[in-house]
Amino acid sequence: MIVKTQYVTFDQELKLQSGATLGPITLAYETYGSLNEDRSNAILICHALSGDAHVAGKHAETDRKAGWWDEAVGPGKAFDTDKYFIISSNVIGGCRGSTGPGSINPKTGKPYGLTFPVITIGDMVEAQRMLLDHLDIPRLLSVTGGSMGGMQALQWAVSYPNRIRSAIVLASTARVSPQAIAFDEVARQAIYADPSWNHGDYYQSTPPNAGLAVARMIGHITYLSDASMRQKFGRRLQEKEKFGYEFATEFAVENYLKYRGSSFTQRFDANSYLYITKAIDYFDLSQGLSSFAEAFRKVKSRFLVVSYSSDWLYPPAESEEIVRALLQNGMDATYVEIQSNYGHDAFLLEAERLAGLTRDFLARVEKEGVNPPPGADRKSR
Amino acid sequence: MIVKTQYVTFDQELKLQSGATLGPITLAYETYGSLNEDRSNAILICHALSGDAHVAGKHAETDRKAGWWDEAVGPGKAFDTDKYFIISSNVIGGCRGSTGPGSINPKTGKPYGLTFPVITIGDMVEAQRMLLDHLDIPRLLSVTGGSMGGMQALQWAVSYPNRIRSAIVLASTARVSPQAIAFDEVARQAIYADPSWNHGDYYQSTPPNAGLAVARMIGHITYLSDASMRQKFGRRLQEKEKFGYEFATEFAVENYLKYRGSSFTQRFDANSYLYITKAIDYFDLSQGLSSFAEAFRKVKSRFLVVSYSSDWLYPPAESEEIVRALLQNGMDATYVEIQSNYGHDAFLLEAERLAGLTRDFLARVEKEGVNPPPGADRKSR
Repeated sequence: MIVKTQYVTFDQELKLQSGATLGPITLAYETYGSLNEDRSNAILICHALSGDAHVAGKHAETDRKAGWWDEAVGPGKAFDTDKYFIISSNVIGGCRGSTGPGSINPKTGKPYGLTFPVITIGDMVEAQRMLLDHLDIPRLLSVTGGSMGGMQALQWAVSYPNRIRSAIVLASTARVSPQAIAFDEVARQAIYADPSWNHGDYYQSTPPNAGLAVARMIGHITYLSDASMRQKFGRRLQEKEKFGYEFATEFAVENYLKYRGSSFTQRFDANSYLYITKAIDYFDLSQGLSSFAEAFRKVKSRFLVVSYSSDWLYPPAESEEIVRALLQNGMDATYVEIQSNYGHDAFLLEAERLAGLTRDFLARVEKEGVNPPPGADRKSR
Repeated sequence: MIVKTQYVTFDQELKLQSGATLGPITLAYETYGSLNEDRSNAILICHALSGDAHVAGKHAETDRKAGWWDEAVGPGKAFDTDKYFIISSNVIGGCRGSTGPGSINPKTGKPYGLTFPVITIGDMVEAQRMLLDHLDIPRLLSVTGGSMGGMQALQWAVSYPNRIRSAIVLASTARVSPQAIAFDEVARQAIYADPSWNHGDYYQSTPPNAGLAVARMIGHITYLSDASMRQKFGRRLQEKEKFGYEFATEFAVENYLKYRGSSFTQRFDANSYLYITKAIDYFDLSQGLSSFAEAFRKVKSRFLVVSYSSDWLYPPAESEEIVRALLQNGMDATYVEIQSNYGHDAFLLEAERLAGLTRDFLARVEKEGVNPPPGADRKSR
C-alpha cells in the first residue's frame, strides 16, 4: 500500500483552550481506502505521543518500514481499508508536518520555539475537526487511538457528540494520573537540563539530543512491563559472556534503551516532546466538574474500551473508570481487558486480538447506529 | 541522641570482585548503644543507594533533621539501642565519608573520578567486614537493611555465614530485575548527558547538578507507588487554582520531584550515584550458578524477609523468591508482606510495623541461635 502525506493549511485562527490563538495552521494527514457515497464510512485514527500521520503502508516501495500501525490498518485488518475510509493527521504541536513549535511563525519569520502556545488534547481535536470540515465528512463512523490517541477519541466523544458514531479507546485514560505526570515531568526536566535546549531556541544550532534521548528512554520503560522486560531481556549481557565492570553497556536492556533514545532524536523535535507531554498531563475530562460521570453526560457515541492487563502507564482500572462513567449515564459500552505481557505497548502489538473486537464492534455501529440502543431509557440525560 | 561519625583508615588494599584493588580505604561509621561483654549484641545496618553512616540521632542538638532511619533505630524502636549495639557505615564508592570516586587518590594526589574502580555489593560487604574486624566483633547478632541495604545483608549471609547469626532483609531482592536496571541506566544517562559531568572530572569545576537532579527524580518515582502518588498529590495544582498553560510547575507532584531532585545535589556526588547504581545492577546472587537455590546453599543465619505490597521496584515476588530458595535449602525463614501504599519507601516509613517483627525475631535469634533449628534435618547441605 503506497500512500502520500497530504497537507492542508487553514487561514482562520484556532482558538485554544488556554485562551490564546494559533494560526494559520497546517495539518499533515494521510487517508487510506475510499470514502463511500454517503460519506459514512470514515474512521479517524489519532496517534500517540510520538506518532504521526503515517499510520500504514509505505511512502515508497523502498521504505524500510511501514507506518506506525501498519499491523492494524490495511485490507482485512482491525481497521479494514477495503471497507472503511481511514484518516489520520499529525497533531498540532507535533513535528511531523503539522504546525508545532519547530514551525516558522509567519508573524516573525522565525521558528516558534517556546513562543508556541501551550496546547491541549481539546485543541488537537479542534484542529482535526477543521480537517474533517475540509474533507467534507459530516460524521465519523468511528474515532480511535491508543494512549494519547485514546484521549483524543474520548475528547471527540465529549466535544462533538453529533459528529462521531463511535469511539474505540485503547490503553488510555480520561484523567492522567500523578505517576504519569511525574514521568512526563522528569522527561521534560531531562530536556531542560540539556544546555543545547537553550530555552527552546535551538533551530539554528545543535538540538538537545542528549536530553531528548534521556526523555525517550524514560518513556520506553513505561511502555514495557516488568514481565515483558524479563522475557525480552532478563539479565542477559550485551554481546559479552561476563561482567566487564565498566560503565559501557553491560546489559541487553541498557543497549535497547540507548538505541531507542538515540534513534528517536533523528525523527523528533525536543520542543514538540515538551508540548505534547504537557497536553497529556492537562488531560482530565472531569476537570472542574462535580463528578467523573458528568464528563460523559453529553456523549452519544457507542464505545469500545480496551485495556491491557500489564499496562501500568494507563492501567486497566483507568479504563474501567471510563466504562463505569458511561454506564452511569445509561450508555452502551463494550469493555475488554486483553491479557497481555506487552505493557502499554500492547495496544500496538496485539493487533490480531484487536481486529477480532473492532470487526464486530464496527459492524454493530454500522447496523444499529448511535447510543442509546433503541428502546433504552436514558433517564440521566 | 547525639552521635558522632567516626572514621577508620585501612592500609591494606581491598581486593575487589572485578579483580582490581582499592586502597588505602577510609570508612565512615557510627555506633549507637553499647556492646555487651561477650560482644554478641551487635547489629549492622546497611544503607540504601543514597544513605550514609548517619542512621539515627543528631550530630548536634541544633541539627534540623535526625539520621535517615531515626524512626527505626533508638531506645525501644525496631532496632533497640537499649539492647543492641548498632553499627552503620557509609559504603565504599559513596560520598559521605567513605572512600569513593570523589576521594583523593593518594597515588596521584587528585580525586579518583572515573579512575575509581567499579565496585559491587560484595565489595561493600568486604569493607564492612574489615570494619567489624577493626571493632573486634567476631559475629553479628544481625545484619539488616532495606533496598540496597537488604542486598548487603543477603551478601553477608552468603559471603560470611559464620559471622552473622541473622539477616533482616527489607524491600529488597537477590537479583536485580531488568526494569530496575533500566531505571538505573536512564539515571546514569541523565548524568552522562550533563556537559558539566565531563567524564567524571568535575571536582575542580561545576558539578553536574542538572543531570544528577534528573537522575534523582527518576529514582523518586520508583520509590513511591501509583497509590501513594494519588493519595499524596492526586492531580492537585501547586499553589494555583487553575491551569496556567505554561511550562512552569503546574502540579504538586512536579513540585515534589523538582524539590527532591535539586536538594539531592546539595548532598550527593554524581559519580557516587553512577558507581552505586552500577553495584546494584550487578547484584545477582545466582550469577554463574545452576539454580537460584544454590546461591543460599552455604548460609547459616536465620532470616526475616519483609516485603511491601505496593513496592514495584523490588516487588514482593522477589522477596518470595528469596524465601523459597531458603526453604529449598532446609533453612528457617520468616516472611512477611506488609500491606502498605507507600511503595518502596515503605521500608523507611512503616517503622512501627517493622518494630513488631524485629523485636520477636531478634529475641528468637538470641535465644535459639542460628539455622538450622535444633533437630531439623538439612539434607540438602
